[in-house]
Amino acid sequence: MKAVVYHGHEDMRLESVADPGIEADTDVLLRVERSAICGSDLHLWHGTEFPEDGFVVGHEFLGTVEDVGPSVHGIKKGDRVLACCTTGCGRCASCRRGTYSGCPVTTKDFTAQNVFGFSNGLWGGQAEAVRVPYADANCVKVPSSLSDDEVLFLTDILPTGYMAADLAKVGPGDTVVVFGCGPVGTFAQMSAMVRGAAKVIAVDLDGGRLERAAARGCVTINSSQESPIEQVMAQTDGMGADVAIEAVGKPELVTQAAMVTRPGGAVSVVGVILEPFQIEWSLFFGKNLSLHTGLVSPQQYIPVLLPLIEQGRLQPAEIISHRLPLDEAVKGYEIFANHAEDVLKVVLTP
Amino acid sequence: MKAVVYHGHEDMRLESVADPGIEADTDVLLRVERSAICGSDLHLWHGTEFPEDGFVVGHEFLGTVEDVGPSVHGIKKGDRVLACCTTGCGRCASCRRGTYSGCPVTTKDFTAQNVFGFSNGLWGGQAEAVRVPYADANCVKVPSSLSDDEVLFLTDILPTGYMAADLAKVGPGDTVVVFGCGPVGTFAQMSAMVRGAAKVIAVDLDGGRLERAAARGCVTINSSQESPIEQVMAQTDGMGADVAIEAVGKPELVTQAAMVTRPGGAVSVVGVILEPFQIEWSLFFGKNLSLHTGLVSPQQYIPVLLPLIEQGRLQPAEIISHRLPLDEAVKGYEIFANHAEDVLKVVLTP
Amino acid sequence: MKAVVYHGHEDMRLESVADPGIEADTDVLLRVERSAICGSDLHLWHGTEFPEDGFVVGHEFLGTVEDVGPSVHGIKKGDRVLACCTTGCGRCASCRRGTYSGCPVTTKDFTAQNVFGFSNGLWGGQAEAVRVPYADANCVKVPSSLSDDEVLFLTDILPTGYMAADLAKVGPGDTVVVFGCGPVGTFAQMSAMVRGAAKVIAVDLDGGRLERAAARGCVTINSSQESPIEQVMAQTDGMGADVAIEAVGKPELVTQAAMVTRPGGAVSVVGVILEPFQIEWSLFFGKNLSLHTGLVSPQQYIPVLLPLIEQGRLQPAEIISHRLPLDEAVKGYEIFANHAEDVLKVVLTP
Amino acid sequence: MKAVVYHGHEDMRLESVADPGIEADTDVLLRVERSAICGSDLHLWHGTEFPEDGFVVGHEFLGTVEDVGPSVHGIKKGDRVLACCTTGCGRCASCRRGTYSGCPVTTKDFTAQNVFGFSNGLWGGQAEAVRVPYADANCVKVPSSLSDDEVLFLTDILPTGYMAADLAKVGPGDTVVVFGCGPVGTFAQMSAMVRGAAKVIAVDLDGGRLERAAARGCVTINSSQESPIEQVMAQTDGMGADVAIEAVGKPELVTQAAMVTRPGGAVSVVGVILEPFQIEWSLFFGKNLSLHTGLVSPQQYIPVLLPLIEQGRLQPAEIISHRLPLDEAVKGYEIFANHAEDVLKVVLTP
Repeated sequence: MKAVVYHGHEDMRLESVADPGIEADTDVLLRVERSAICGSDLHLWHGTEFPEDGFVVGHEFLGTVEDVGPSVHGIKKGDRVLACCTTGCGRCASCRRGTYSGCPVTTKDFTAQNVFGFSNGLWGGQAEAVRVPYADANCVKVPSSLSDDEVLFLTDILPTGYMAADLAKVGPGDTVVVFGCGPVGTFAQMSAMVRGAAKVIAVDLDGGRLERAAARGCVTINSSQESPIEQVMAQTDGMGADVAIEAVGKPELVTQAAMVTRPGGAVSVVGVILEPFQIEWSLFFGKNLSLHTGLVSPQQYIPVLLPLIEQGRLQPAEIISHRLPLDEAVKGYEIFANHAEDVLKVVLTP
Repeated sequence: MKAVVYHGHEDMRLESVADPGIEADTDVLLRVERSAICGSDLHLWHGTEFPEDGFVVGHEFLGTVEDVGPSVHGIKKGDRVLACCTTGCGRCASCRRGTYSGCPVTTKDFTAQNVFGFSNGLWGGQAEAVRVPYADANCVKVPSSLSDDEVLFLTDILPTGYMAADLAKVGPGDTVVVFGCGPVGTFAQMSAMVRGAAKVIAVDLDGGRLERAAARGCVTINSSQESPIEQVMAQTDGMGADVAIEAVGKPELVTQAAMVTRPGGAVSVVGVILEPFQIEWSLFFGKNLSLHTGLVSPQQYIPVLLPLIEQGRLQPAEIISHRLPLDEAVKGYEIFANHAEDVLKVVLTP
Repeated sequence: MKAVVYHGHEDMRLESVADPGIEADTDVLLRVERSAICGSDLHLWHGTEFPEDGFVVGHEFLGTVEDVGPSVHGIKKGDRVLACCTTGCGRCASCRRGTYSGCPVTTKDFTAQNVFGFSNGLWGGQAEAVRVPYADANCVKVPSSLSDDEVLFLTDILPTGYMAADLAKVGPGDTVVVFGCGPVGTFAQMSAMVRGAAKVIAVDLDGGRLERAAARGCVTINSSQESPIEQVMAQTDGMGADVAIEAVGKPELVTQAAMVTRPGGAVSVVGVILEPFQIEWSLFFGKNLSLHTGLVSPQQYIPVLLPLIEQGRLQPAEIISHRLPLDEAVKGYEIFANHAEDVLKVVLTP
Repeated sequence: MKAVVYHGHEDMRLESVADPGIEADTDVLLRVERSAICGSDLHLWHGTEFPEDGFVVGHEFLGTVEDVGPSVHGIKKGDRVLACCTTGCGRCASCRRGTYSGCPVTTKDFTAQNVFGFSNGLWGGQAEAVRVPYADANCVKVPSSLSDDEVLFLTDILPTGYMAADLAKVGPGDTVVVFGCGPVGTFAQMSAMVRGAAKVIAVDLDGGRLERAAARGCVTINSSQESPIEQVMAQTDGMGADVAIEAVGKPELVTQAAMVTRPGGAVSVVGVILEPFQIEWSLFFGKNLSLHTGLVSPQQYIPVLLPLIEQGRLQPAEIISHRLPLDEAVKGYEIFANHAEDVLKVVLTP
């Protein structure tokens, strides 16, 4: 089959690779119908030191079940399903708590990496087909009333944006600052609103993205023109926001997030930061702030988010800016990596 | 001054009564700018056995501060303030927990009744002026950007509707059934939505009220034409709703609420029921339901609701169907008591 | 095999019945090592109208796995396991929320009754062997460091007592009143303490049981000699307790529970009441009380309770008053039904 | 009066200073009966760059009310009261949420520092008398049944230890690691237990302190002899603890805390760290950890902790190792600063 294969720094290639198949009793095989390129795929693209190569990438995808292992109970051939980006066994204590990302079974099975598309242990879904392990735990059936575009982002970034709001306990009446209007920031803003935030303040450098945030109901701050700290304080009678969400992935924005948050508030970081960094502890200590982060387990949030999409209260497809056939995936990576053509999200169709 | 005075069954009168004034250090005197007739005022109207008479009624009102006791800290002459319907001392353990309705200080001061307008101990606000005790605890300043109509219902029924959703822990993705599309039911529906409910199902007998609920985003069931139980089950794959709210005040609807709720769900009752009634225990026990009710303490919810009104996410003024001068208050009672003229809410202006 | 079989009012018999075996892929077969007679078994004993007969009773038991269906993953032959009294499929939305008692799959499989020992659909464990359906969901392995006596009550009444405290959100510093010092009341008292209650007030008519409650750290009220309402009010500065738990099963104690609870507090009912009853609504409404009840899902609480037993912080075996061989089970029922010999809990060993 | 006055690095002096008195309507004047030296006082002792000098130190103290401002409602002359270390106005949004440490009123009144004994704006309680501002918000009456020693630590370090457990949501059945067996670590251990932790693992370098922790029911790890990470993993089947608490104040222990915590768990830091430090972000991100810290508001926790002391479930006086007259306070500082004489806590009596 055809698939996008990682070969190192700025070197993704569309290649023919061996067809996947059922390997364990609890696997299913999916024929991929749609996949997307995620900001965290760009960490592979830009990175220079990834220890492996030759694996298929992609962790945001859905498809139709083509084959089913004998111990799979809840999914059958022909079902259209989402594959959660982070896989768990579904039965251990960590999965039962909802932290599939901490599942000791799958992290061991796939050599410390239980997210699709980051190692040869678990090939990804930017491909014509993909094997999904522990399918009862990691696949979710899609209601026929919903289109692929409407549900695709449930596999990773919509739950990631929601998690930012959930970990920080965004609630009715809150003021929430979101740093970043990219795909995850957009979903964090939508999630804050759906949880009842009174005011969502979006911060970005990009005027176009800020316009879209304003259309979505956010107050906006262009941080290339004004100070987010001054602006947030001015809008909150000098107290600060209840919650600040970092959805970019820069240590200095973690500090800015702490600066704009009121005493007793919470800071959520869902932008990906891979290195240790300096934390301005006096802000966290002096203002009694809590700090939240993590790798999403979509399994935990899909039961909340899917009904909201079904009722039209969340419309995640709005972020799609580019659609390409799988054959042009490499072009998609180049556009996304270079922030070209006002790109927000690239979707691939095999 | 002129005021609406209770004299017994269907006997409210507009009368001249003594002007109120500061009695305790912690009082303020309000010049009333707007008040409303509440469904619970009709319990006085319809009732026959109320032990006292001769008192001024009304517990939904706002006004301008005309005089201030020497121990009041947070409010000054000229402030436009809401008066919370339930008064507390603001300092006891019950008030600190947010249960002003259980304040032992004010229930003692005003002879077991710490809601405005139900006894001679605490005269109400359907009047030209009113004394508000423990003003720091019971008055809330109104932002100048908001009109009287936008904030008036924060004094009782908007928080009451919100309390229904809050006690039952309505959260994102939930399905919520609300029995009743009157003022409190309307606010319960809005509150469920603002807390992230995916689907709000409104039940009523009145086609006009159901149309307004549909316009507000609710799914509707006309219980004069179809069975709420069958309809809710059909819409929830046979499982039942996460939460059901009774906003009418009929014991049989408490049972229906239990019938439409899923195992482990919650039933909130904010319709006023004054008599003991039979509870279908096997439903509550067999389905692990919790049951919630109470008298609202607006103090607890105004910090959540006011910012939502300021940001336009809640628009409570939509329920106002009738506006009358205070002089015509008795006519307002008659219209409301007789469900005449498609009445939903009567607002009075002195 | 030998088993205790229900034949109607006061008619349990030790009989030879067909040996159970694996029927579905997800079953295990247990060799029973210990079982207990539960207060709810006495509802069968005293009852007159149970629709079926001829089934094996008993829903509190543990044993060793003798046979395993091919789709069972987490349990193997030779494991010593607890069987949760309430069975669920483990995969539906209700089970995922922890409400196994509301599992639509098992309630359908076993004809509306998914608790062991109440129908021919699901035979119980007062027997030499028992089939456990959906074993991955309903069996819990027992650490070898713990004795049968220490863990037996995890199958029902210890989680039931804990649930009473959990539903009412008993927390650190609380005052909690427990009506009843029987097995469930005892465990509710222990659970309130382990959750940090400052003061647990035990109410009973039986001086011996109250002495044991006092030894356990409770304040005691003998309701044959003094008024629980007066005593609780005296001990709480007239405010009432934070939480009251009914662990007897009498409607009038639900009212007493409401009377002793402070405004904004919670009432939990885990005593079994099978009939509708009158609820004193003005207490619940006027004091903003919540009411909680339900059928326990031990699966939900064992992860919390088992480590507490392992560390010696809960010692549930203290309630065992009688030990009998399975052959003398009928005698055990008679003792328990007649409150003879200071009985608190009867344990049976095949 | 006599008082302990700060003059710079290792320079506390017992001096005669002006007697304090009522300055604002909401003040009370306390005659101090007992005070203590806190670990955070040692930051003054060891520090070199504190911007002010000449102020009276001490933020853990209780006393008898000698004079009362005219707007104080809940406290009268002769009352024995605790003074909360962190002062708030009691009426702003931050105080209403329980975050008195973030009160904008008092931080402005006392020039950015609203804790007793850290500036000339708010003199401390290691003195014969002290002025307490906003007394209704910051003083708590002591039940006559309790001794000074039993309640003294409610003014700061007992709530601080409890806050560590509370912010991390320690709950029934949890395993909790506490780094440090000093006064705050001791109270964090006690608090974890009172909240229902099954296993509390205490880590320290000091064998004597570990012996006392073991006597208190903790499992102990001597980090001078064994690796806390290996030991915790061995005791938790390789998963890690639910919660880790840093009660020492060293950045490297924040990292160790993250290492011993399971995926989805929480890290609380109540040891005082004044400088920014490097945070091992991959641990927090990869394991979905939350991080909590802050300055305590005793007002928030005293309602929970005081009843537990009254019922004998918490016995905080056990940490007192030294008692000195106020006249010998400087000697107390020297003993404490030098970890001499097995010191754990020094209490001063005027």
